[in-house]
Order: sequence, then C-alpha cells, then structure tokens
Amino acid sequence: MTEQTSGETIFERVALVGIGHIGSSLARALKREAGLIGHLAISDLDAGARAKALELGLADTIHEEPADAVADADLVVLCTPIGTYRAISKALAPHLKPGCVISDVGSVKRAPIRDMAPNLPDTAHFVPGHPIAGTEHSGPESGFAELFEGRYWLLTPPEGTDADAVARLRRLYEAIGALVEEMDADYHDKVLAVTSHVPHLIAYTIVGTAVDLEGHLQNDVIRFSAGGFRDFTRIAGSNPIMWRDIFLNNREAVLEILQRFTEDLTALQRAIRWGEGQTLQDLFTRTRAIRRGVIEARQEVPPSADNPG
Amino acid sequence: MTEQTSGETIFERVALVGIGHIGSSLARALKREAGLIGHLAISDLDAGARAKALELGLADTIHEEPADAVADADLVVLCTPIGTYRAISKALAPHLKPGCVISDVGSVKRAPIRDMAPNLPDTAHFVPGHPIAGTEHSGPESGFAELFEGRYWLLTPPEGTDADAVARLRRLYEAIGALVEEMDADYHDKVLAVTSHVPHLIAYTIVGTAVDLEGHLQNDVIRFSAGGFRDFTRIAGSNPIMWRDIFLNNREAVLEILQRFTEDLTALQRAIRWGEGQTLQDLFTRTRAIRRGVIEARQEVPPSADNPG
Repeated sequence: MTEQTSGETIFERVALVGIGHIGSSLARALKREAGLIGHLAISDLDAGARAKALELGLADTIHEEPADAVADADLVVLCTPIGTYRAISKALAPHLKPGCVISDVGSVKRAPIRDMAPNLPDTAHFVPGHPIAGTEHSGPESGFAELFEGRYWLLTPPEGTDADAVARLRRLYEAIGALVEEMDADYHDKVLAVTSHVPHLIAYTIVGTAVDLEGHLQNDVIRFSAGGFRDFTRIAGSNPIMWRDIFLNNREAVLEILQRFTEDLTALQRAIRWGEGQTLQDLFTRTRAIRRGVIEARQEVPPSADNPG
Repeated sequence: MTEQTSGETIFERVALVGIGHIGSSLARALKREAGLIGHLAISDLDAGARAKALELGLADTIHEEPADAVADADLVVLCTPIGTYRAISKALAPHLKPGCVISDVGSVKRAPIRDMAPNLPDTAHFVPGHPIAGTEHSGPESGFAELFEGRYWLLTPPEGTDADAVARLRRLYEAIGALVEEMDADYHDKVLAVTSHVPHLIAYTIVGTAVDLEGHLQNDVIRFSAGGFRDFTRIAGSNPIMWRDIFLNNREAVLEILQRFTEDLTALQRAIRWGEGQTLQDLFTRTRAIRRGVIEARQEVPPSADNPG
C-alpha cells in the first residue's frame, strides 16, 4: 500500500488549483514520473501566472476558472492561500466528478476541514494535506520537481474518510519522493505553530523592528547583518498573503504558543536586567539537546532551505 | 595604509589568549600567510584545548598561563568570553611589552573598554575588535583559516588611541581577508543588539519553549521541524558561556531593542486575536524591503553560515 507499482497510473486526470511555488513544484514532480498520472490540468486566476505556466510547459491544459480545470478530474489539489478555500470549494463543488479525491497543501489543517468540507458533495473524498517543504520564493517560476524528495507530507483525513482515497493519495506523494504521515488536524496545527508559525511571526517582528530604526542605524544593521538577523530576513521574505492566512487560520494554537514564548522571554529579559548569569547559562545549555535532536532527525531529509508551503 | 606590502611581517610575536572557535581560526589564518607574523604563542587554561591545539599544530608555543604567552609579544588578542576580560587583563598587565598592541574579539565593545582599559599600562595600545564571523560550533577543532575572508572585522578604538597601532592591526586583519571598519563602541553595541544579540535571545527562547512541551509533542516538533524552527535551533546551539557574557555585557542596548520587539510582537498578537488581516499583511510586505537590502549587501561577502564570535 505504501509502494508504487512501477508504471501504475494512480490518477487519470489531476487538477491543480493555483500555480505558485508549491503548485508548480507539484506539477513538475507529477509530470516527471512517466505514467504516474494521465492528464494534468491547472488553473490560476492570475493571467501572468498562466502565461508563465504555459511558457514553462507545466501542464497539459491551463485554465482561468477552477471549475474548468476540475471537470472530470480524479484528483483536485488546492494550492492557493488558505483564505481562498471557502470560495473556491463552493465554486468547484458542482463540477466535481463523483468519487474524486480532493486535497490541499495549506500549512494549517483544521481550517480547511471547517471551510471546505461543508461545501463538498458526499461523493467527493476530502483528504487535507500539507507538504513540509518550500522556500521563501513565490510564483510558478520558483518551483522545482525535487522539492518534495525526502520531505514529510502530512495527511489529516477526518474520521470516516474513505481509506482507499487516502491510500491512493499516499501512493502518489510517495511516488514523487515524499515521506507521507497521517495525523490529527488539531495536533498538526499545534506542532506547526511551534515549528513554523510562531518562528515566522517572531522573524517578521524583529525584521519589522529593524525597519522602524532611524535611517543610518538601519543601513548599518543591513550592512553588518550577522547570522541571526540574516537568517530572520530570509524567513521574513516569504509570501505575505500566504502567511497572513496562516496566522488568521491557526489563531488558537499560535496564540497559545506565543503566550508561552512571551512568558519565557520576559523571564530572560528580567535575568538580563538583574544580571542573573546562571539563569541565562542554564537555558542556553538546555537548548543544545533540542539542537542535537534536530540534527539527528535531519539525517533523514536533504539539507535544503525550507519552510512550509 | 590599508594594503599589506607583500612579505611584510606586521607583528614579530603574536599571542592569542584562548584557543576556541575564533582563536583557533585566527591562529590558522595567521600561520597560513607566510611571513605575516613571526612567532605565534597561544594560551588556554583548559588542558584538553591545549592538547588539541598541540595535535593540530596551531602555534609555535602553547602555554597554560596567559602571562607566559604574552611575554615579549607585539600583539596580544583575547579570544575568551567577555566575562573573563577583567581578570585576564589584570593578570597580563605586568607582563606586557612596552608598545605592544592589545585587542580582543568579543561581540560587545563598550564592556572591554570598561573592564580592560583601566588595568592596562599606558605603554600598551588597546584597540578593541570584533570579527563578524563564526559558526555555532565551539572548540579549537572547529576553527578554519578561511573564516574571516570577506567578513567584516570592526575596530572600536577609544579616542586618542595611537593611530599607528590601529593601522597595523587593520593591515593584519586585511591580510587574512577581512573587511576592516572603524566605529564608535556604543554604536557598535546598538547595531549588534539588533543584528545578532536580540535574534539570538529570541531563538534561544523559542527553542526553550519547545523544551518545555509535553514529551510526545516535543518529539514531533523535532521530527517535523520546518525551516523556521530548524534555523532557530542552529542559532540556539551556540556556546552558552559566550552568549551569557554577551547579554550580561550589552544589557542596555539589548533591553532597549527587546522592548521595541515586544511592543511590536504584542501589536501582532492583538492583530491575530482580532483577525486583523490587513495589519499582518502590511508588516509582512514591509519586511521584504529589508530582505532585499540584506541580499544586496551580502553580495560582498561569501554566503556561509555565520554568527558573531
């Protein structure tokens, strides 16, 4: 069930809605494996993205309207910001082929179940998904077929989801190199709040703090940006709409982790103010164990820059 | 004055006090350029570090006591945590050769002037310095000769410092590939608080927050660590003593930037709580300009992982 039979066509017609960084990477990966899928249809409301997709030869057919792309599709994957899911799922619903599998690639997994599931026909199998892959770049030209190789692709099917639909999606993503895992949507959102959402918010904040500095100081901050700040600017260079939607749609988990973070930061701030060196040293020593764990876990995946799509 | 005459021996005898990541990198760089210096003496109180330095052939003589290393030296560079400067400078002072140049590599520059200058004889020329280079690794075995190539090395000589002493140190560091700049110590500490110290404190904090999570959640945070968190764990894997001393010795600037940061974070937290998408999107868009500036500035330096030593 977790291994692709060589030459097997897992889905005859696949439709990708949205052809940005993740959508175009998925398109490239699916087309690379001969026979893995039949027809690939993509849609994007943006004319510039469609022109670029055409130029790059990313799909068999390119559509403006999602409804045209999904007609007769056996698999539909939403690759648009989470804030668009409600409207797109409503627009798509009447056009979905009975028995089709529908998924997404959003970094939050409870919100799609809330926003999409009620709009979909009972004959469609909804399997929310999230590839933990991506770079800080945006747009169809930034994608590449190898993006998902060795990276986790998390599926969060609600209870009662058709097991065969989940299995087929798993086979498809494994065929393009991903490590597929299933988990509960709420648990997913909590893990990602810690590993990705709050770190991004913090990075955006400190870079924003620098934006507000007086001109000459800001120039020297950029000029002498050391490892810490430079890493943060990379993170804070990501797609603004995508991240706005992530924070609006994972509010509860983000606020909870943020609360813990600010309590911890306040304690450190106090230790600095009162010169409590031991408190600082203790924390700085404890965090090394987590680093070791990450290095060990990382051996399973290629060492490339990434953040969640 | 800023170009090394080929073959010129800039300092006859050089002593490095402390042979960790930065000290050993400096030793390697100085020995690589034939004739740049004469004798290289190093000292370290740690027997393990001395044994490793001997094995690696990092210096001409290796001493336990700093006083033995600095005797007759024309240049002395402290490569130990900032918290040791007061005691070491007191111990060294009686042994310094008249006319010698003494410097350091600490990431804070006002504190050395406060802690060292009063202990040094009038015949020594104190030129505080800070190479913006380093990795998250520690110890003599982690150093490498190319560490300073294309990286800034900031000098913060107090008013009235001997110009020739500053010029010679500049020539030495330029000869090993560094870009040398002079600036005011307080200004340095403010810039570094933004580019390095506060980002490190934030990274330590969020990784520490993860350490306190329940066991299974913590395991999955490590396993599925995405770009944001993984970058932070790298930063938070740095030397605990060095960083403790940085925060204790750049308290004022760190607390000021931290105050601005927490105000900004509180505003974003509020925007998330009340679903104010436009506020989030506006900030996430503004931070992109800083990212572009860093990318442009970065063209001057090699793209390697770094943080301040």
